[in-house]
Amino acid sequence: MSALRSLLPALAVALWLGPTPSPAAAPTLALGPPTAPKAAAPANHRSALAKATAPRIDPTYWFVGMKNPKLQLLVHAPGIAGSTATLGAYPGVTLDGFEKLESANYLIVNLTISPEAKPGQLKLTFKGAKSLTTTYELRPRNQDPARTQGLTQADFIYMLMPDRFANGDPKNDVVKGTREPSIDRGAMFARHGGDLKGIEQHFDYLKALGATAIWPTPIVENDMPKASYHGYAVTDCYQIDPRYGTNAEYVQFVQHAHAQGFKVVQDIVLNHWGSYNYLFLDKPAANWFHEWPSFTRSNYNAYALNDPHGSQYDKKRYNDGWFDTTMPDVNQSNPYVATYLTQNFLWWVESTGLDGYRIDTYPYSEPHFLMSWGKAIMDEYPKLTLYGEAWEGSTAEQAFYAQNIMQPVDGFKSNLPGVLDFITTFAIADALKDGNLEHLYQSLQSDWLYVDATRNVTFLDNHDMSRFYSVIGEDFSKYKMGLAWLLTLRGIPQLYYGTEVLMKNFSNPDGKVREDFPGGWAGDSKNYFVNRPGQAGEAFDYVSKLALYRKSHPVLSSGKLMQFIPQDGVYTYFRYTDAGCVMVMANVGKEAKTVDGARFAERTSGYSSGMNVVTGEAVGDLKSFKIPAQTAWVVELRK
Amino acid sequence: MSALRSLLPALAVALWLGPTPSPAAAPTLALGPPTAPKAAAPANHRSALAKATAPRIDPTYWFVGMKNPKLQLLVHAPGIAGSTATLGAYPGVTLDGFEKLESANYLIVNLTISPEAKPGQLKLTFKGAKSLTTTYELRPRNQDPARTQGLTQADFIYMLMPDRFANGDPKNDVVKGTREPSIDRGAMFARHGGDLKGIEQHFDYLKALGATAIWPTPIVENDMPKASYHGYAVTDCYQIDPRYGTNAEYVQFVQHAHAQGFKVVQDIVLNHWGSYNYLFLDKPAANWFHEWPSFTRSNYNAYALNDPHGSQYDKKRYNDGWFDTTMPDVNQSNPYVATYLTQNFLWWVESTGLDGYRIDTYPYSEPHFLMSWGKAIMDEYPKLTLYGEAWEGSTAEQAFYAQNIMQPVDGFKSNLPGVLDFITTFAIADALKDGNLEHLYQSLQSDWLYVDATRNVTFLDNHDMSRFYSVIGEDFSKYKMGLAWLLTLRGIPQLYYGTEVLMKNFSNPDGKVREDFPGGWAGDSKNYFVNRPGQAGEAFDYVSKLALYRKSHPVLSSGKLMQFIPQDGVYTYFRYTDAGCVMVMANVGKEAKTVDGARFAERTSGYSSGMNVVTGEAVGDLKSFKIPAQTAWVVELRK
Repeated sequence: MSALRSLLPALAVALWLGPTPSPAAAPTLALGPPTAPKAAAPANHRSALAKATAPRIDPTYWFVGMKNPKLQLLVHAPGIAGSTATLGAYPGVTLDGFEKLESANYLIVNLTISPEAKPGQLKLTFKGAKSLTTTYELRPRNQDPARTQGLTQADFIYMLMPDRFANGDPKNDVVKGTREPSIDRGAMFARHGGDLKGIEQHFDYLKALGATAIWPTPIVENDMPKASYHGYAVTDCYQIDPRYGTNAEYVQFVQHAHAQGFKVVQDIVLNHWGSYNYLFLDKPAANWFHEWPSFTRSNYNAYALNDPHGSQYDKKRYNDGWFDTTMPDVNQSNPYVATYLTQNFLWWVESTGLDGYRIDTYPYSEPHFLMSWGKAIMDEYPKLTLYGEAWEGSTAEQAFYAQNIMQPVDGFKSNLPGVLDFITTFAIADALKDGNLEHLYQSLQSDWLYVDATRNVTFLDNHDMSRFYSVIGEDFSKYKMGLAWLLTLRGIPQLYYGTEVLMKNFSNPDGKVREDFPGGWAGDSKNYFVNRPGQAGEAFDYVSKLALYRKSHPVLSSGKLMQFIPQDGVYTYFRYTDAGCVMVMANVGKEAKTVDGARFAERTSGYSSGMNVVTGEAVGDLKSFKIPAQTAWVVELRK
Repeated sequence: MSALRSLLPALAVALWLGPTPSPAAAPTLALGPPTAPKAAAPANHRSALAKATAPRIDPTYWFVGMKNPKLQLLVHAPGIAGSTATLGAYPGVTLDGFEKLESANYLIVNLTISPEAKPGQLKLTFKGAKSLTTTYELRPRNQDPARTQGLTQADFIYMLMPDRFANGDPKNDVVKGTREPSIDRGAMFARHGGDLKGIEQHFDYLKALGATAIWPTPIVENDMPKASYHGYAVTDCYQIDPRYGTNAEYVQFVQHAHAQGFKVVQDIVLNHWGSYNYLFLDKPAANWFHEWPSFTRSNYNAYALNDPHGSQYDKKRYNDGWFDTTMPDVNQSNPYVATYLTQNFLWWVESTGLDGYRIDTYPYSEPHFLMSWGKAIMDEYPKLTLYGEAWEGSTAEQAFYAQNIMQPVDGFKSNLPGVLDFITTFAIADALKDGNLEHLYQSLQSDWLYVDATRNVTFLDNHDMSRFYSVIGEDFSKYKMGLAWLLTLRGIPQLYYGTEVLMKNFSNPDGKVREDFPGGWAGDSKNYFVNRPGQAGEAFDYVSKLALYRKSHPVLSSGKLMQFIPQDGVYTYFRYTDAGCVMVMANVGKEAKTVDGARFAERTSGYSSGMNVVTGEAVGDLKSFKIPAQTAWVVELRK
C-alpha cells in the first residue's frame, strides 16, 4: 500500500531517511482521526448493533473440523462486559470461559470445537448487565479439493484496483449509508465505481492476455469518508466493501474465477485498519492499537527493525507509528488482537476458497506475531500462497522477510514463503533506463539468501509506483525487453492492470497511476478490452504471446535458471529442464552486438538451432549471435 | 591487491561485468609468462639448488610441540623423485612415508613430530636416482606469551607500502642477483628503495600519530623482472624480499615493533604467486596451478561463486582464471598445495610472533581450502587476527566471506573472523561526496549479517583505491568528518600511509596513489615526518588527537554502538559503556542545522553536558544542538 505512497517517489519511501513528511504533503488524505462517535452502530449497510438483541460476533461464523479446535469469539454489544456467558448444550462444543476486556461493550468467549462437532447453531446466552441470547453458526468445511491450490511459477498474476478496472454493476456505485456515498471519476481520490462484477465480465480479456491469477487490491469494507477506494483502510474485517459487491458475490467471484481457470489472490492488511473500523471507534481496549500522545507517523524505515545498533526509539517509531492519520496501527502483540487477525484470515480462505494472500506492509507488523500468524495459516492451508510486500533497499533486507538462510535475529525468522521482489523490479528499471545490467544480474544472483526465491513475485510496477512505461521513457523497445524478462525469469510474474496496453504516468507528483482502465465503464470513449489501436495493441499481443508461451511451456515455469555474467551490454540466461531449453538474450545497448556463443556451451550443447518464440523466426546458429540494439530474444532451442 | 587494480577505477574492478580487459590495458605489467628456464636455481641470493648436495626443503625448518603433529616436507632437488627417503633415528619423530609427484625434481616426505620430540637436527637420507643426505632443523617454539596477541578495536592500523614509505637501509636498495637490480624513484612501477628499517626508524612518528599496528603490503620475496614492488607476486614463500631486509631482520622488526607497543600484520596471498616463483618455474606437478589452453584472466566477479543460477564457466573463470599474466593461479584443491600453504603460514607466525594476517584476494581462493586453511591457522593460533580482502558490492556478499549468520552455500561457510569493510568505505565516500547518509547508516545496520562485525577493518582508502583526500575533492571539512567516523565507528580502523598528511591522487588513470612518503628518503625536499606545514600539519594533529583519544578511552574501542536514522543531513551515533558515552554527530549539509536531542534520550539520559574531544569546547546542552555545516562533532558526555 498505500495512497500515501503514490504521492511520493517510490524509492524515496523505500529508503526513507529524511524528515517525517508533514501531513500537509498529502492533503487529501490527512483527515485526522475521526471524532469518535458514540459506541454505536457504524452508519452503514450492516448494522448489527442497531438491533439491540443481536450482538456482533467476530468471526461472524465458524467451521467444524478445523485443525485448531480453539475458537475465540469477540462479542460486541453495549454493556456486555458485565454479563456472564453460557453455552446451550451442543455435542462436541465446550465453553472454555469468557473474559472481560477494558471496554464495557465487549466480551471474549472461548470455545473448543472438537473434531466430532457437527454443523449447526450454537446457542449463547449472556446474563447480567446486558442479557440476551443469540445463535452462532458452525458451518461445514468445504471439501472441494480444487479449492485453495495456491500459485506456482506457472501462474501469471494480473493485479488491479477493483475501483478502477471495470464497473460491472452500476447499482452498487453509490451505497446509501456509507460515509462516501458518491462517485466522481474525475477525482483521483474519489471512488469511481469499479467492482467485482466488472472483473468477472472481463475474464475473457484476461484469458486472452494469458493471465492465470487475479490480485485485486483489498476488497473488504473501507467505509471511510474519503480516499479509501484503494482498500487499505479496512473498517470491517469480515465484510466485502458494498461498492464492490456482497460477501456472497465475492464467494461467487472466486468460484467463477476458478471455473474459468483463474486463481484469486486476496490483498490483506495486518498492520493497520481504517480509523472508522468499528473496533477503533469503540475500542475493545486501548491496547488494541498503538497509541501515542499525539499523532506519530511511522518512520517508514524497516532498517530500524533489525539494526543491531538501532535505538528503541527508531524501532518503535517504525513498528508502532501510524502509517497515516487515517490508519491506526494495530497492536498485534496483544494476544486477543493476534487471535482476531489469525481467525479472520482462516475464515476468508475457508469461506471463499481463495488461493493466496498478498500481505500489505509486511515488515511493519510485529515480528513475532508475523511468525505465529503465518504458522497458523500455513498449518491449516499448506497449499495457500503467501507473499508479502517488503519494500526494501537490499536483497538481504528483502530476504529477511521471507524464508531465508539466515539465523534468527532477535528471535525473528520469517516463515513467509515469498515476497514481492522489489529489488528485481528496480534492477530491471536500471537496466532499461541506464543500460546497467549489473543490478539485474546481481538481483538474481542474490537468490542464494532465500530458501526458495522462485516463490517471489516479480513485477514491473504496481499501484504505488510510477508506471513501467513511463519509467522507461515510453520506449517500446525497452518495454518489450522488460516484459520479456518478467515473463521468462524465475518467480511468479505479476502485471499491473493497464501495463499491457501502455498505460502511463508517474506516482509523483500527481499519483495518476491508478486511472480507470479504458473501456471499463459504459460509454468510455476508448475500450481497450475490445479495440487496442496502434502500439497498445502491439503491447497486448506481445505480452499475450509470451504469457501464453510460458503457460504452455513448463520450461519457463518449472525449469531451472542459469545466468551468465553480463558482457558488453548483453545479458544472457537460460531456463532449462531435461526436456527443453529457452535462451533469453537481451542487448540493452544502442548498437547491435555480436555475441560469441562458446561461453554458453553448458546449456546449448545438444542443441543446434532455435526459434524466436515471439516472431517465429529461426535462429540458425548457436555459436555466434548478432543481436540488434535494445532487443530481447526469447529463443526456444531445437536439437 | 594489486598493481593491476591501481590502473582501473576501484569500483569498476569490484563490480566488473564488462569485457575482459586486454593485457594492453596494463602495458607495464603484461609481461606474459616467463620463458621457463631449466629446472635450475632461481638466480637470486638464496640458491639452495645451486649446491647440488643441499636440496631445498619447505618448510625451511619446523617446530616441536605444534598442535598438529603432522609435517609434510616438499623436497626439491634434481631427480629426487627417483629416490627413497629414510630418517635417521630421532626420538619422537617418525617417517610416515614419501610420495612422488609428477616432476622428477620433487619428493614429498611425511613426518610425525610427537609431543615428546625435542628440538634438534633430523637426518634425512635419499637414495636412488638422486642420493644425498641432509639435515632438517626442528626448533623450539617460542613461549613468550606476549607474542601473537591479535588486534582488537583498541588498535589503529597504519597500512603502508614498504617500498614507498621510507628507505632506512640504502645498502639493500639494489640486490645483486635479483631480476630487477635497480631502483628508480621517478618511475611509478619501479622499486624505490623503501624497507623494513625505514619503517622502524619512524616508529616515533607512528606513535605520535596514535597508530598501534603496522600493516605493510607483502614483504616476502617478489623476485620479478618488473613492477613487483607491491609484493603481491610472491616468488619465495619462505623468504623476506632482500630489498626490504633479511628474514632475521624481519624477526627483529616484529620484536622491535612489539617493544614499542605496535602490533604487526603480515599481508599474505593465498590465491596466486609470481610467475618466477621457483614452484612455477619448475612445477612439482602441472596441477599445482590452474592451467588454461591460453592465458585466461579471472573475470574478477565474485558473484559467480555463490550464484545459485551461475554457470560453471563463470565460476571457473572467477576462481581459476589468473589474476594477471604474471600471477599464476594456485590450485588449492590439490591437497599438497593446501598443506604447503597451511604450513607456510603457521611457519611465519611461529617464526616471527606476528599478530595478524591480512589475506589478499580472499574470495578468489578455492572456498573449501579457505575453510580448512583458516581452521588450521586458528586452531594453532586462536589469538591471531585474520581479516580478508573481499571487495564486494553488497554487505551480504561481503559478509559471505566472513563469519556470518547464513547457512553454508555449496558447503562453504566462511570461518574468517573479519573482512576489510569496503561497503562502509564506499558509504563514507557517498556521504561526503553526495551528502547521502543512507548508505553509511545502512552499512552499519547490515552488521546483523555478521557474527561479529567489530572484527572488520574499516578504512578510507588503500593502495588500490583513489586516495581519500582526492575522492572528497580535497575538502578539509569533509576530510575531518571522514576521519572522525573512521576513528569512532565500530571495527578496527586502518589508515593508509600519507592520508594523515593529505597525500592525494586518483587510482585512475595514472595510479599515483603509491607515491613516496615525503621525507622517507635522505635528501627529500619535504620531510613530513618532522615538518608538516599548513593543512598537512592540521590533518596530522586531527588524526592524532582522535587516535590517541580512542586509544585511551575504552568507550570507543569496547563500547557498544547505537545509531539513529539520519535526518535532514545529520547522522548521529553513540559509543557507550556503563562507564561512559561518546556522541558523534555529523552534519554533511551545506547549512548549519538545529537538532532536537529528545530522540537520543536512550543514550543521553543521565548526562547533562559534553566536551568536544578535538577542540576541548564545552557542549552545554544535550536537549538541542546547533551543528555547523559540514562538521563532525565527537563529544564526550558528562554527568
